[in-house]
Amino acid sequence: MKKIYLDHVATNPLHPEVLDAMLPYFKELYGNPLSLYEPGVKAREAIENARESTADLINAKAKEIIFTASGAESNNFALKGIGYALQNKGKHIIVSKVEHHSILNSARFLEKQGFAVTYLPVDNHGLVDPAAVEKAVTDETILISVIHASPEIGTIQSIADIGKIAKAKGIFFHTDAVASVGNIPVDVQALNVDLMTFAAHQFYGPKGAAALYVREGTRIVPLIYGGIQEGGRRAGTENVPAIVGMGKAAEITKRDLQKRIDHVTPLRDKIISSALKIDKVILTGHPHQRLPGHASFVVEYIEGEAMLLMLAFKGIYSASGSACSSKALKSSPVLISIGVPVHLAQGSVVFTLGEGTTEADINYFNE
Amino acid sequence: MKKIYLDHVATNPLHPEVLDAMLPYFKELYGNPLSLYEPGVKAREAIENARESTADLINAKAKEIIFTASGAESNNFALKGIGYALQNKGKHIIVSKVEHHSILNSARFLEKQGFAVTYLPVDNHGLVDPAAVEKAVTDETILISVIHASPEIGTIQSIADIGKIAKAKGIFFHTDAVASVGNIPVDVQALNVDLMTFAAHQFYGPKGAAALYVREGTRIVPLIYGGIQEGGRRAGTENVPAIVGMGKAAEITKRDLQKRIDHVTPLRDKIISSALKIDKVILTGHPHQRLPGHASFVVEYIEGEAMLLMLAFKGIYSASGSACSSKALKSSPVLISIGVPVHLAQGSVVFTLGEGTTEADINYFNE
Repeated sequence: MKKIYLDHVATNPLHPEVLDAMLPYFKELYGNPLSLYEPGVKAREAIENARESTADLINAKAKEIIFTASGAESNNFALKGIGYALQNKGKHIIVSKVEHHSILNSARFLEKQGFAVTYLPVDNHGLVDPAAVEKAVTDETILISVIHASPEIGTIQSIADIGKIAKAKGIFFHTDAVASVGNIPVDVQALNVDLMTFAAHQFYGPKGAAALYVREGTRIVPLIYGGIQEGGRRAGTENVPAIVGMGKAAEITKRDLQKRIDHVTPLRDKIISSALKIDKVILTGHPHQRLPGHASFVVEYIEGEAMLLMLAFKGIYSASGSACSSKALKSSPVLISIGVPVHLAQGSVVFTLGEGTTEADINYFNE
Repeated sequence: MKKIYLDHVATNPLHPEVLDAMLPYFKELYGNPLSLYEPGVKAREAIENARESTADLINAKAKEIIFTASGAESNNFALKGIGYALQNKGKHIIVSKVEHHSILNSARFLEKQGFAVTYLPVDNHGLVDPAAVEKAVTDETILISVIHASPEIGTIQSIADIGKIAKAKGIFFHTDAVASVGNIPVDVQALNVDLMTFAAHQFYGPKGAAALYVREGTRIVPLIYGGIQEGGRRAGTENVPAIVGMGKAAEITKRDLQKRIDHVTPLRDKIISSALKIDKVILTGHPHQRLPGHASFVVEYIEGEAMLLMLAFKGIYSASGSACSSKALKSSPVLISIGVPVHLAQGSVVFTLGEGTTEADINYFNE
């Protein structure tokens, strides 16, 4: 049976060049990067080269990249790290209602520690209104965090506009760009962000490697204390092969990004137009301000889970929403936020395309 | 030139069987373990198998293992996670003065959040007196954390005795066993611990894979919030290859541990007896209650850093203390705690042996 992987937003296969770049660091170059002898020094150099490539992909400086182990870690780090660093200045944070659980649950944790959090609503396409951000700001606001692109509904937020407001008000601005970096051009200068989360396995890099971009001069309290790794801001023996893999994946992504976009966009449009011909199928998220490889729907009278199993039976691998909650069996808060009724939110299905997706795949799928 | 790696406490080469076990999860089995389709389900099964082997190495149940990305993460998780979970019961924590920075700095962070911390002194061999632990306990004490074996001076603490006291008092007890698991038998039941940190790269597993053992029924607040991975206690897309590697390394370690101990112990003794013949060289740590592959010294009238570079020049790769602070250029708090004067603490050098260390290496070294 043909197998078609349409869950690129959950994770991606490793690019073969990435694995090749990683392998020496599993073998002879295993030294601790903090050591003074040759194999350690080589590991250190490899990390710094990876930092350059990773920074380059998002138009940042190398020293503004802190390597972490996952997007979830970067998101927790951003919220709690800025929260603790600036709590004497103010204890109010603004997030949207369509954030990933790692943001929403970090915000709830901070509420328990005495912070106030505003959860901004979105429109039916999942968009945060920049004017609503401006209105929510108080004298106590120290951080705004809005997701760049939704893994569940594909909508791309107007981050640059929100960033402009944050900048004018002198408030730090973080975006969770896990679903966008690698899929669309992302430039931290153009977006006006001070902090940004992104993860390597979203752009054909390894699992276990992610980063938090932190604009130069931004004070942040570590989430993981310990040794002097990452400038004392994120402790733990560096996962050298994974970091090297992230650097290589960033380099390849910078080279291939436009090709990837040109490849998946027409295939996505084909899926959407075919699906919408079926009765009781509704597109979720924004009709065009959405990720190029992302098609998401709700289907009436059917459970997402049942639909996925049916599709898997035909060799089509897809998701009903965020992988991180796929087994939680709750209606997605994102779908509820865009006004999908609870009974419909259960019938959610998400198809996400990648480099390896072919026209033939989509034709098979459309049959 | 001959190259002799004597820094096994900093990190270790990957066991070739471990890399072989990991490779399929970099290639075809790349699915997200939370997915419902076949490649995801296989990744999920691989993680659960690794959890079994990892638990088995320390005589725990699989469900008591939470995978993390580093020993530092596990240590931060233990201290802050228990701190936040039990802060309504009490806000006092006991640690020793010879803990790793990831414990000491987490304790200092908690102090800033209103917790009180007792830092227990040690004797000249680096041992914590269990009676001193008992005396330090107050009605407010919620957690005791004492390192199992010191990476800097090799001393193995009387964890089982401290654990007995903690148990009798009904206080949670954590040990940082990063330097011990893989080098000596470690059994969480015999040690009477409720939480334990350990890391795969200390026993020929990959960097980026570690665990926190959490005894069944222990409530802990996540350090990394987000999805439902690790039973909702540690979010982030699972680093499948690294976790699989940790499981394999645990399995091999269980099989080979006694052989490893028998191999390194006489070689270590040879290093120690040769070194102590040299004038102005003093052994640090306990003379026999120490890690089997660990020899540590201070040398008068010479800086550790200069000594390491000299040794590296002869092809001998060693450390001056904890890798995590090797470039921090401060006197080690551990050496100061055992009564080494500041001027001598600068002349610290640590040799740690592993599977690959040979008699010939040690003979070369002793010349």
